[in-house]
Amino acid sequence: MTGPAPLTLYDSAISGNAYKVRLLLSQLGLPFRRIEFDVDDGSTRTAEFLARNPNGKVPCIALADGSHLWESNAILYYFAEGTQYWPGDKRLRAQALQWMFFEQYSHEPYIAVVRHWVAHLGKTPENEPQLPGKIARGYQALDVMESHLKHHDFFAGPAYSIADMALYAYTHVAPEGGFDLGRYPFIRAWLARVAARPGHVRIID
Amino acid sequence: MTGPAPLTLYDSAISGNAYKVRLLLSQLGLPFRRIEFDVDDGSTRTAEFLARNPNGKVPCIALADGSHLWESNAILYYFAEGTQYWPGDKRLRAQALQWMFFEQYSHEPYIAVVRHWVAHLGKTPENEPQLPGKIARGYQALDVMESHLKHHDFFAGPAYSIADMALYAYTHVAPEGGFDLGRYPFIRAWLARVAARPGHVRIID
Repeated sequence: MTGPAPLTLYDSAISGNAYKVRLLLSQLGLPFRRIEFDVDDGSTRTAEFLARNPNGKVPCIALADGSHLWESNAILYYFAEGTQYWPGDKRLRAQALQWMFFEQYSHEPYIAVVRHWVAHLGKTPENEPQLPGKIARGYQALDVMESHLKHHDFFAGPAYSIADMALYAYTHVAPEGGFDLGRYPFIRAWLARVAARPGHVRIID
Repeated sequence: MTGPAPLTLYDSAISGNAYKVRLLLSQLGLPFRRIEFDVDDGSTRTAEFLARNPNGKVPCIALADGSHLWESNAILYYFAEGTQYWPGDKRLRAQALQWMFFEQYSHEPYIAVVRHWVAHLGKTPENEPQLPGKIARGYQALDVMESHLKHHDFFAGPAYSIADMALYAYTHVAPEGGFDLGRYPFIRAWLARVAARPGHVRIID
């Protein structure tokens, strides 16, 4: 008897969005194979790739029925539903999504983009003028997280959930973009709690 | 016998994100009272408002238990769960969220921001140089929507859902920002389908 066919994850080692999916699948013990893409060389914009994700981005995952799902946080929802990582209470489910939408709108475009420019692409005449504004917005996002974590261990109720995975992905590598987490004791304590969870994997492994 | 206490929506008449919530609550027949905010005068950044939403934005909604929920698409989820506007199938629920995360990451920051700058704030020395890039990204988002709608009536399976409400909000007012929908026949047909749904309300009423 063989197990189910492994899932195929269209992946990128440096992408925090892709890492979210690797983290959840690892914590759920679901086997998957990784197909690595470079997020900067146009390889996710080919006709072949756009047939999987018309928005031309990783992560994207092939499901057992042959269909594809994309958007990291939607993939997290799909695999977490029915597990300990998706709250049992409707109010807390909405709160998990609240923080996941916050992550994609108010956090990732600043924390992740600054990291990518500083640590991977390098500063250019085009991106350098935009850096101060994006750094300021990144710190705003960290301030909002800190204000929540001052009174709560996790983002959606008392238990670790996919909201924590979504926010952990780029927060824990924010220093690669030059963000100083020294001023955020509650974020640092939460990062340690998340990293101590059973089945945790690192972004680069 | 009186009905339930009405919900309180911290609102803005010009905000497509706030309109999403008004649209769903209207279609569900749920009474709510609106408290209007100006999104540009700092009134959502007061200490009083930040106690409701630490991210300082509308929409934000006060629930019956006195707690607050924010992020427009998370509010949509909360009220749609268990209704016809949230798919019964898990794969389609994930697909609804996929398009809602797409809306917040790849659509709203371009379509909505260009509309706000062009139609409400006016061009400034600071925003004008950023317009061409944001307009190009807005058209990319419309291209992705058009490619989906060429083969589907709605965004998450055969039925109208909160994914359609989320994408309708800023797409139908994109021409206010100068976007030409003439080249998108499938988007225009979908906009007409959404506007014809029972209980539909307009963004300004």
